[in-house]
Amino acid sequence: MKKKRISILGSTGSIGRQALEIIGKFPERFKVVSLCAGENLEILARQIQKFKPRMASVISEQKAKALKKMVPGPVSVAWGEEGLDRAAVAEDADLVLMSLVGSPGLKPLLKAIACGKTIALANKEPMVMAGKLIMEQVRKNSARLIPVDSEHSAIFQLLEGKPRKQIRRVILSASGGPFLRGKKEQLKNVSIAQVLKHPTWKMGKKITVDSATLMNKALELIEAKWLFDLSPGRISVIIHPQSIVHSLVELNDGAVFAHLSVPDMRIPISYALFWPERPGLDLKKLDLAQISELKFEKPDFNQFPALKLGFCALKMGGSMASAMNAANEEAVKAFLSGKISFNGIVRIVEKVMDGHKSAEPKNLEDVLEVDRGARERARKLINV
Amino acid sequence: MKKKRISILGSTGSIGRQALEIIGKFPERFKVVSLCAGENLEILARQIQKFKPRMASVISEQKAKALKKMVPGPVSVAWGEEGLDRAAVAEDADLVLMSLVGSPGLKPLLKAIACGKTIALANKEPMVMAGKLIMEQVRKNSARLIPVDSEHSAIFQLLEGKPRKQIRRVILSASGGPFLRGKKEQLKNVSIAQVLKHPTWKMGKKITVDSATLMNKALELIEAKWLFDLSPGRISVIIHPQSIVHSLVELNDGAVFAHLSVPDMRIPISYALFWPERPGLDLKKLDLAQISELKFEKPDFNQFPALKLGFCALKMGGSMASAMNAANEEAVKAFLSGKISFNGIVRIVEKVMDGHKSAEPKNLEDVLEVDRGARERARKLINV
Repeated sequence: MKKKRISILGSTGSIGRQALEIIGKFPERFKVVSLCAGENLEILARQIQKFKPRMASVISEQKAKALKKMVPGPVSVAWGEEGLDRAAVAEDADLVLMSLVGSPGLKPLLKAIACGKTIALANKEPMVMAGKLIMEQVRKNSARLIPVDSEHSAIFQLLEGKPRKQIRRVILSASGGPFLRGKKEQLKNVSIAQVLKHPTWKMGKKITVDSATLMNKALELIEAKWLFDLSPGRISVIIHPQSIVHSLVELNDGAVFAHLSVPDMRIPISYALFWPERPGLDLKKLDLAQISELKFEKPDFNQFPALKLGFCALKMGGSMASAMNAANEEAVKAFLSGKISFNGIVRIVEKVMDGHKSAEPKNLEDVLEVDRGARERARKLINV
Repeated sequence: MKKKRISILGSTGSIGRQALEIIGKFPERFKVVSLCAGENLEILARQIQKFKPRMASVISEQKAKALKKMVPGPVSVAWGEEGLDRAAVAEDADLVLMSLVGSPGLKPLLKAIACGKTIALANKEPMVMAGKLIMEQVRKNSARLIPVDSEHSAIFQLLEGKPRKQIRRVILSASGGPFLRGKKEQLKNVSIAQVLKHPTWKMGKKITVDSATLMNKALELIEAKWLFDLSPGRISVIIHPQSIVHSLVELNDGAVFAHLSVPDMRIPISYALFWPERPGLDLKKLDLAQISELKFEKPDFNQFPALKLGFCALKMGGSMASAMNAANEEAVKAFLSGKISFNGIVRIVEKVMDGHKSAEPKNLEDVLEVDRGARERARKLINV
């Protein structure tokens, strides 16, 4: 069997590392052709030694020089946007794993799509910023997006083979994060460490903060809308703190299909890497009898205003989701550097959205303009 | 769109009546060509007046004459085995719904299969008696079986489109029936009325008793083995008292797909009637947030020895399941007529199985011989 050749954008983050762990277990199935990271040279150097990609890329020329010294082999080292672009369009890549964090993933994603690549998409922010544009390009270039997010991977798998007209709605699961039971007023003073301790999932920092505010679910609503071409009324959210039911799909006749597993990102990552096959994985098995109860509740918009903002952006369409995403990225950065409180994150996003006039972005420049504007307003609010 | 023409064997039972209720709601989609019942002439006469089948059949010549007087229209009235056979092979039937109770369904089922019919199968006992023979004939005649049982319908739907090599196992849900929490010793004295009061499903008498002993699940294990061509190690059972998760399928990568709905047999019946389409049904919707908890537990073989017998028959193969089924039919009849206690049902089945030498039946005669022998032994034990 021919090896699947993989290019990874974001190889030293949580998703990238887990993807390489899986790839390392199936050396007869995969060949890594390029690895892109930011500043984490040590991990990247180890990955290069192990997986021997043709090229690697880092954030800057300086880091590239440092990396080159660490890995004296035949690897070609690039940097910056150009490095990402080269990895995204690599001619020898059968699959591009997009696991960058946040908006920087947008441009390389569009580049990969323009080449008609099959893309394992772990980076949701670009979809929130420019979902319409992205999906137009996907169709035009016959590219393919395989979601890596556990919820979207679940929906992707649940929808597979089901005629569209049979679908009544999709239901995204939300764990509710670490503060599901907390009083809203108490959240003002939670520490960064408390926020970064997610009860069920081990993930990167940005997404862990987003999971605590539930802004992650707000972003996922938009991502689902574009990935699965759903009208706003066909997407809902249910709180399921155990993160075992990853999402559900309700059909016309009232049947509801659910995708369950132990909460382990290696399952959806493997699915995206192996798609359209499904690998045998030797992970902990789901034991429902031992778990004994699966719990569900209605999301409380009062407790989690971010979710309300998400539904609002979903319904408004246009560039509202993009403004929400940009403000959120700035606010999360500010929270992680101690500048604002936890509750401040969503407050800032809400203010930016309140002041935003949503219009349909016509091209990438429009998208980036909305992004820039929303960030500027967010930063002003942060520095008040 | 051409109407789907339907022949129903067992139209006055619980499944038959619900099927006609659905058919009555979609008069532009279905045409009833034949209806077979046993002795319930009043219901059958009303069904004939409403659905105007070409033919009807009842249990005996005497009943046929009585029916003829009740419905003086153009319907042709047949009786007995011949009547069932005529309905099973009706040339103008696109779909045959087999909703007879127990072993009498075997012969007409084989007749319908011999004609290469598409069959909605609600009658599980024939599969338990002669699954190997039936599936051989299905393949040979390019017939098709669409299960109606909620669990098997769920598995059928969950397996659809999934490559076989990706399937690790199927997990049948069992409600546990009305005596899930009872002490085994107390079950000795439960009344027929208590047994017939199932907590989640409204069904016929035989299956309701089988659901209380869990013999129904034992039969379903065998049915699943044949319907889905599964080796014994790939079928397991989980207790789920709410009957919302109808069954689950575990895949190679640890992902588990589940089929959920409110417990309403009209959903799987509709699925079988409309297959390969899926109708829009205006039934109560599943509201997981309101349900709040889905509960699961390991089946307790001590509490439910019938389940142990089912797994035993599953592993032994040959004619063991057929003996189990025959003994159970006799024992259920004896219980419903007050001859034996509730606990006596499974005790008799176990004794018959203990004394049964399992051999692979080569043809229908072998199957019927096993059935006869097991019934005789069961009756002897009942009348001790």
